[in-house]
Order: sequence, then structure tokens, then C-alpha cells
Amino acid sequence: MTIPPSAVVLLSGGLDSATVLAIARNQGFQILAMSFRYGQRNLKELGAAEKLAVDAGIKRHVILDLDFRVYGGSALTDDIDVPKGRDLKSTEIPVTYVPARNTMFLSHALALAEVSGAQDIFIGVNALDYSGYPDCRPDYIQAFERMANLATKAGVEETAPVRIQTPLLDLTKAGIISRGIALGVDYSITMSCYDPPYGDCLWHCGACDACQLRKKGFATAGIADPTRYL
Amino acid sequence: MTIPPSAVVLLSGGLDSATVLAIARNQGFQILAMSFRYGQRNLKELGAAEKLAVDAGIKRHVILDLDFRVYGGSALTDDIDVPKGRDLKSTEIPVTYVPARNTMFLSHALALAEVSGAQDIFIGVNALDYSGYPDCRPDYIQAFERMANLATKAGVEETAPVRIQTPLLDLTKAGIISRGIALGVDYSITMSCYDPPYGDCLWHCGACDACQLRKKGFATAGIADPTRYL
Repeated sequence: MTIPPSAVVLLSGGLDSATVLAIARNQGFQILAMSFRYGQRNLKELGAAEKLAVDAGIKRHVILDLDFRVYGGSALTDDIDVPKGRDLKSTEIPVTYVPARNTMFLSHALALAEVSGAQDIFIGVNALDYSGYPDCRPDYIQAFERMANLATKAGVEETAPVRIQTPLLDLTKAGIISRGIALGVDYSITMSCYDPPYGDCLWHCGACDACQLRKKGFATAGIADPTRYL
Repeated sequence: MTIPPSAVVLLSGGLDSATVLAIARNQGFQILAMSFRYGQRNLKELGAAEKLAVDAGIKRHVILDLDFRVYGGSALTDDIDVPKGRDLKSTEIPVTYVPARNTMFLSHALALAEVSGAQDIFIGVNALDYSGYPDCRPDYIQAFERMANLATKAGVEETAPVRIQTPLLDLTKAGIISRGIALGVDYSITMSCYDPPYGDCLWHCGACDACQLRKKGFATAGIADPTRYL
């Protein structure tokens, strides 16, 4: 009996990472899920991540505490209003950008991967239907992978290199949803909203960047949207 | 009156980072020091970092909690014996290697730099008198810098690029000590030991890799070693 290879999956609890989790499982990996309690105003996404991990019966789910509030500077962690109804064609980097977030997340995933003997790290970045964050671009991911292989034992001992897997990179939001539905993802338990209303767990505001992209994705894919919007 | 530029300095409390702090100050930077409470067995180095920062009268000292123990796999965070009297000519990566540590530290420094408008990040890595950690090599530092510029607003908006400053990279331990002494560094308040004895604050074991390098450095530089070894 061969032991399946392990992979670290960054799991925020949103639509994209839920799809990535399903893709990695479908490829036969043993999953080490990783989430962060980073001072995000919306802790509901973390609840969604836990539910997704439990439902998928994964091997291990690491939740790391990281207080990004010491840095400040983002609407996702500070008392800055989340923009609503923003034009997504704008090339400006929005205030919901969290400085260096993906770099910090991937760095911690790299540590977990190295310790666990996992060669693959999955992240749900997407370069089409996204908010213009610099750390979602293909060039960035390639540069991170290159750095990661110099940073760790793999680069010195010339064992199997680290791979940053980005299966959503070239998909539209509609394409991501179609792929997830084909793999049985239950999107009703995912949480995308940057600014969810108080109260019942998974309501979405319907107007922030993430909600706009989510709504449009389901509509374009022609799939019934299970999300409850305000 | 011009405002001096800010720089983030990674400050562990050891001999190297104390020297880097003095070099960055000498270059006229306003200092944002950054340290980590990462589950290290030796918390005395953090005390040393605080003392160094206070004595230097720096602008801000951020200490971030990061529980590396969730990863495991290193003698610096786990219940694994720190090697004593190890042959430093060995090419093996020792158990004191903390997987992806510099990558995590630099990633957090990158976030702090971006939020604070600092262009420069100083780190005391050294490629000569070191323990063979992969994340101290010049290729690694260059790859990190390249990645950092793609990760952040600087890369998108083509503003001043992030620079990873490694003033100790090509110095021997003796050279580092001579440079520090010339800048007035008080090495008696620094802490290098991987496994300090219980009790009085700054005693060093004298036999771990870090102590061996420290001792030899002072001897070679011909400078009286203020360290108290067991």
C-alpha cells in the first residue's frame, strides 16, 4: 500500500479555497489545511473553513494566530469602511488589500509543508476575477516558488522541490464555480463577504467586491446561487 | 527639515542583529525594530532585543506572537537536545534549523514596511560564520527581494522598490564584532546562546553552535569578550 502524498491547502473558508480543497482531494493528496486568525473583522470565514475541513474529513487543520492588526492599513482588519458597489474594472488597489498577506500565508504554509514532508502547497489565487491585489499575479507566485526552494532544505539537499499549486489562476469566477460543482462542493457553507451583517451566520452583504464577484460568477455559470444576500 | 527614511530592522537580540541595528542607525534611518515571540525555548534573547531597542532610543519596536510550535521540527522550539561542541565544518543542516524561519520573519517585516512606508528591511544574515541554514544564503535573499517587489504595491505602482539589506552577509564573525565595536555596540547585553542555563539572565552555555561562533569571533578580532560562558 502506498501512502498518498501530503499537500498543504490554504483554506480561508471562501468560495475559491473551498474549490481548491476539492481539487487537491480529487488529485489524491492527503490534506493539511491551514487557516489564520489574523485579526480579520469577519471571523465567520474561519467558521466556514472549519466546517469545510470537517465535512471533507481531512487529516489535520492548523489554525495559526497572527495579529495583523499590529501593522494596520487594511479595511479587512481596521476600522475602515469596506467599499460597496465599487467598480471592479478600476485598476486601483482597494483598501481591502492586506499588505503582504499572501506572502505571510504562503511563508507559514511553507514551514508546515517542510516539517510535514509535503511537497505541494495549494492556494486559491486567481488572476481574472479578482480585486487587483498584487499578490495574486502569476509572476508573484512564480517568484515565491523560486524563493521557497532556496529557503528550505529542499534547495540544499536537492530533494523534491516545493511546488506552489494555483489551480484557479486562469479560471473565471464562473469557471471556478462550475469546477467546484462538478467536484461536489457545497457552496452554501462558504463565506466570501468582506463585511457580513451581524447575526445569522452566513448572510452576505451583496455589495462588497467579493460579493459582487460571487454573484456574477453564479449568474454567468448558470448555476443557482445558494448564497443569502442582504 | 527633511524627515529621515524609515527602515525595519529584524532584531533577535543576538550579536548579529545588534550590529545590524547600529549600522542602520549609523546610515541615518529611523528604526522600526521587529522581534518575534515564536515559541523559542530561549526567551532571554527577546529580553535582550527589548534592552537593545530601548538603549538605542528607537521609534517603535513591534513584537509579534507567532507560535512556531504548531509546526514543530526544530531544537529551538521543541524538546530536542541542542547539539554541543558540534563540528562547524559539517555541511549537514543542524537540528537547530527552524523551517522557513527567515522567510516568515521577512514576510512579516515586509508587511510592516509596506504599511509604514519603509523601503528598507535589514536582516543580520551571514554567509560565512554560520550554521549552514539554507535561508542565510545570498541567492535566497535576492530571490526574496524579487518576490517582495512583486508581492506589494511597490511592484504595481512602480514606486520605490523594497530593498533587503544584509550588511553582514560577507563579513566573518570577527569582522562583524569589529564593525559593531567601532559603532559603539555593547555586546554584553546581547544573547546568542541556543540553550542558555537557567538563572542569571545573560549566561551563555559556551558549547552550542552560536556560542562557538561568538567565542571564536571575539578571539579572532582580538577584542575582549564580555560574555559570561558556563
